[in-house]
Amino acid sequence: MNQIKVFAPATVANVSCGYDAMGFALSELGDNMVFKKTETKVVRITEIHGADLPFEADKNVAGVVAKLMLQHSEADFGLDIKIQKNFKPGSGLGSSAASAAGTAFAVNELLGSKYDHLQLTKFAMQGEVAACGSAIADNVAACIYGGFILVRSYEPLDIVPIPTPSELVATIIHPQIEIKTEDARKVVPETIPVKTAIAQWANVGGLISGLYAGDFDLIGNSLIDYVAEPQRKLLIPHFDEVKEAAIKSGALGVGISGSGPSMFALSKGMFMAKQIAEAMHAIYEKSGIDYAIYVSNISKTGARPI
Amino acid sequence: MNQIKVFAPATVANVSCGYDAMGFALSELGDNMVFKKTETKVVRITEIHGADLPFEADKNVAGVVAKLMLQHSEADFGLDIKIQKNFKPGSGLGSSAASAAGTAFAVNELLGSKYDHLQLTKFAMQGEVAACGSAIADNVAACIYGGFILVRSYEPLDIVPIPTPSELVATIIHPQIEIKTEDARKVVPETIPVKTAIAQWANVGGLISGLYAGDFDLIGNSLIDYVAEPQRKLLIPHFDEVKEAAIKSGALGVGISGSGPSMFALSKGMFMAKQIAEAMHAIYEKSGIDYAIYVSNISKTGARPI
Repeated sequence: MNQIKVFAPATVANVSCGYDAMGFALSELGDNMVFKKTETKVVRITEIHGADLPFEADKNVAGVVAKLMLQHSEADFGLDIKIQKNFKPGSGLGSSAASAAGTAFAVNELLGSKYDHLQLTKFAMQGEVAACGSAIADNVAACIYGGFILVRSYEPLDIVPIPTPSELVATIIHPQIEIKTEDARKVVPETIPVKTAIAQWANVGGLISGLYAGDFDLIGNSLIDYVAEPQRKLLIPHFDEVKEAAIKSGALGVGISGSGPSMFALSKGMFMAKQIAEAMHAIYEKSGIDYAIYVSNISKTGARPI
Repeated sequence: MNQIKVFAPATVANVSCGYDAMGFALSELGDNMVFKKTETKVVRITEIHGADLPFEADKNVAGVVAKLMLQHSEADFGLDIKIQKNFKPGSGLGSSAASAAGTAFAVNELLGSKYDHLQLTKFAMQGEVAACGSAIADNVAACIYGGFILVRSYEPLDIVPIPTPSELVATIIHPQIEIKTEDARKVVPETIPVKTAIAQWANVGGLISGLYAGDFDLIGNSLIDYVAEPQRKLLIPHFDEVKEAAIKSGALGVGISGSGPSMFALSKGMFMAKQIAEAMHAIYEKSGIDYAIYVSNISKTGARPI
């Protein structure tokens, strides 16, 4: 194989109660990337569309991950990489993770599937270091494994894939305002009452049970975040209105995607998901804020060849 | 039906990471109780064996729950209750919960199965109020539902039964020292760092995934308590030695049962569970402390007629 074209999905990290520990991948929103083997052992970013990102390989998430993997595998080839971003960096939908994980997946295919999902996640996490300074796993793991994932532990890294009921659909609204990850982090308290923590982990248990059992009511009842959302939502215009309208339109639950500003709703079936999208439109079209709305199934496979 | 004899299982609450939110029931350790309908609308405790508990119905957990249920259902009969306690109050194995939940189960049978599991849990929680002053659900829910349970929420009460791999076996050691629940509560911090809470809920997610998937490694890796165990274990003689020896003998994980002093180990299969029991014996027989050791499968059904 000399060339591969891949789809690298957008991802929703945190998933309400699963703050800093859970994520899921979308199947209909993500980046396209093309990787072509070259004879020189050099990694080049040759095209970038849809976002203003660095072409220099050492500063580009895809470049960093590709170089790392070629070096680690002692590959005898280089790569030319074309990147088509289909959703914006800073959306809270794992833009850098899609680049990192898409690259990890693609390079692994060109290497003859040398690495497993866990190792690919580790490579992609180095792309997150390049993008945001820390080796966070939730978005990249979701992007590589597909479906819902749990980051059970960082030391050692342990990623648990969670089964996803096939009828579960996500509706996403991305208000195109900027929230710096750093600011979003700052508003989360450093300590919390144990009682709050217990309520949160009871819901994590409920969400994971609901996903295994295909119990949509349980999924919905568990989608509560006592820790980050109460403060972070203040950074997102019309959060409460969007949440209320989405729930009224049938959403099982609504939360902040990653550190925002995107919000996600989960619902049972595509019809409901589209109703929720309309309810979100109705609120944001009056707001004067640019926004994008996406409706998507949950990706079963994560990054994939196209 | 004029009379019923029931087995009310001992239960392990908390289950390491699942502090204040999870519990499971044992199938081979528990109390026996006999309930006999009487014509007078009076609840009497006629026999108590194996523990020094009040005969006065309003002060006895079984009496409290029975009276409540007869009143709620407007029953036209009274009850004579015989109680055989087979494990000691104050063990951390849900002694009052067994009395409360066993009564709720038995009275419901005599009422023609009028109530569902959730309602029975609510009745039994009133027994816990009588016993310890607060309406805690983890032990009584495990005792009623059987297997592993998650208390997802108190308001409204939401109990999630979690599937239990059939090969999972518990080994329990009860050092016969007294730890007051109040003291055990006091040593648990009131606030914790969010990072600690995240690690804990990631393990709750891992434990529940492991139970659903029958993944024993995942169950074992997830049995970590960052919140209560670090302080509570100081109240339990030889905790670290018991834990180390049990793990060396094949335990998936070891933790404190409820607020102690009992410790539980989970393992795959009866052979391993008995090896762990021997390792526990070896430590405690030199300690000069009275103790009891139990090996038991996980109860699939909770309280049951015998």
